Amino acid sequence: MKQKALVYSENEFGKIDGKVANGLVRFSERYEIVGIIDSTKAGLDAGECLDGIKNGIPIFHSIDDAVEKLNYIPKYFIYGIAPLAPFLDKEQRQIIITAMEKGMNIINGLPEFFTEDDEFMQKASEYGVKIYDFRKSPPRKDLHIFSGSIFKIKTPVVVVTGTDCAVGKRTTTRILVEDLKKKGVNAVFVTTGQTGLLQGAKYGMALDVLSSGFATGEVEKAIMDAVNTEHPDIIIVEGQGALSHPAFNSSIAIIKGANPDAIILQHQPKRKYRCDYPAIPMPTLESEIELNEVFSKSKVIAITINNEDMTNAELEDTIIEYEDRYKLPATNVLKYGCDKIIKKIYEVFPEILNKYN
Amino acid sequence: MKQKALVYSENEFGKIDGKVANGLVRFSERYEIVGIIDSTKAGLDAGECLDGIKNGIPIFHSIDDAVEKLNYIPKYFIYGIAPLAPFLDKEQRQIIITAMEKGMNIINGLPEFFTEDDEFMQKASEYGVKIYDFRKSPPRKDLHIFSGSIFKIKTPVVVVTGTDCAVGKRTTTRILVEDLKKKGVNAVFVTTGQTGLLQGAKYGMALDVLSSGFATGEVEKAIMDAVNTEHPDIIIVEGQGALSHPAFNSSIAIIKGANPDAIILQHQPKRKYRCDYPAIPMPTLESEIELNEVFSKSKVIAITINNEDMTNAELEDTIIEYEDRYKLPATNVLKYGCDKIIKKIYEVFPEILNKYN
Repeated sequence: MKQKALVYSENEFGKIDGKVANGLVRFSERYEIVGIIDSTKAGLDAGECLDGIKNGIPIFHSIDDAVEKLNYIPKYFIYGIAPLAPFLDKEQRQIIITAMEKGMNIINGLPEFFTEDDEFMQKASEYGVKIYDFRKSPPRKDLHIFSGSIFKIKTPVVVVTGTDCAVGKRTTTRILVEDLKKKGVNAVFVTTGQTGLLQGAKYGMALDVLSSGFATGEVEKAIMDAVNTEHPDIIIVEGQGALSHPAFNSSIAIIKGANPDAIILQHQPKRKYRCDYPAIPMPTLESEIELNEVFSKSKVIAITINNEDMTNAELEDTIIEYEDRYKLPATNVLKYGCDKIIKKIYEVFPEILNKYN
Repeated sequence: MKQKALVYSENEFGKIDGKVANGLVRFSERYEIVGIIDSTKAGLDAGECLDGIKNGIPIFHSIDDAVEKLNYIPKYFIYGIAPLAPFLDKEQRQIIITAMEKGMNIINGLPEFFTEDDEFMQKASEYGVKIYDFRKSPPRKDLHIFSGSIFKIKTPVVVVTGTDCAVGKRTTTRILVEDLKKKGVNAVFVTTGQTGLLQGAKYGMALDVLSSGFATGEVEKAIMDAVNTEHPDIIIVEGQGALSHPAFNSSIAIIKGANPDAIILQHQPKRKYRCDYPAIPMPTLESEIELNEVFSKSKVIAITINNEDMTNAELEDTIIEYEDRYKLPATNVLKYGCDKIIKKIYEVFPEILNKYN
């Protein structure tokens, strides 16, 4: 049975830095999400707020408001904001302490580890709750260096990369895997981020806290585990950041560790500047395709579009434009599903189609 | 005054996995290297063994042999092997303990941290010596995320990349910086590995133990520190691994964090398979040049050649061949110095030449 969890996403729900909460509202295999805390959207339905479809998850004003309206204490409090700032401020720290005081166990997806924080640990002990640092790297002895075994597998591996951070790679990956499964294809999702882990992904890791010496090896290992355990028809790996992003490197460890046979590239046409880096412009789709293809020595086989700030007409025009310009299927999977992409996957990997037809 | 240090490099001195010892024998600003331990080369002169020129650093058979012949206890014992295997075996552990027993302080450049090892710490306390984990990441609060400030500097930045690990990038970088200085150019060396740090580099870090979220930021910060403190004419950054290497990612953090204006590419023509990965073939020089140029959006301006396993005639033929094929200066800096490269640097960055002429 899933355990009940309240997700804190003050001022960020539905926005870029609320992506942990957004992801959990859309999909959660590990926890039952019983509410979101974001005073700026209090009273709304989280699903409606995010994707226009009610899902019965309420948005609360505060911890007190949540506890009062729920009339019970959820077992877990998930700190669901993923800001660039590396440390919590005083007010944010107080939120964690209040949640513990109410009796909730803390799930921390930040790279700032609460279990190494004296005050937090003392409070946890005082209130009889536990703290879980979800993004803490496993001890070095449990990590794997790259072995090259990835070069020997026959299972097709597809990586969903993007032109920026927080552009919808994980959501596209997740929906694509679900849609493939609906068609009877044994597709396996491999996560590379904390949200995927929190959502309950069976394979994967939070890549950005691993050191360079283990990052590729851990991606390779997750895929090998999935291959050996699930004997899948195809593996779809969530990308991180962007190959071109000047600040982040996880995308590269994913390409190296996964050795993909094909790439799906997620793009947000309306974004002008990098997420969290307002002085750094977005790359062009052309340059990101080139970078992905030169670097991975495989091909971009589809473009998926994040429709933020776009009207439906703009989205539809963009799809037509991209398909014409790049001679690739283009779509928005939240609105139009994955049929176009799956058709292309069957084309590139006919063994999958042949197996089920 | 430099402190005396003995360097342990059993069975590896002069070879790839002895690169820490090799580097320290060639150049050491921090320690006075009083001897190497490698029973397979005991009795030889380390400089002669490595580069054919005596430098008075003896190679000893064992710790006992070293202490007996030196007739004193060096202050430091540097564990100078850089193997792929992530953990020391029992025999290797005993070496560390023996060194401590003799009264030497341990300098550990491995990513396996001796200060987190109960037995080692207990022995250090028992024998009254200290252990320094040279490659331990600084605490998170002292690390920097990428800021974008690197995009604003006017100082030319050159990165020395390579087609593989342990191919001579650091040595080329070091010699190029020294040769530029001899010509009066204020060149600054930025290291990205433990050997550079052990050699005494003022700017840089051991990049491979940093997590992806900080790696680019720390490279950027090291360069910004060098710019702001030294006001240099040019910065030369040591690369790591290879952009194309399937197992490692540090090279990418360097390109991203350093945002180079030019690249020098180090290659070993005779190497057939990746260092430490005997099943993975080396890339072609063409594909590595393409990858470097697409990824960095700058140009490879020179090729430097590691002459391992090459006769002089082969080396000279290769230089002619590369210069003809790639229309770039090619050289081996240990044998022929850096004049060709410096001429090219003046051509690409005429402001440096103009300043001194």
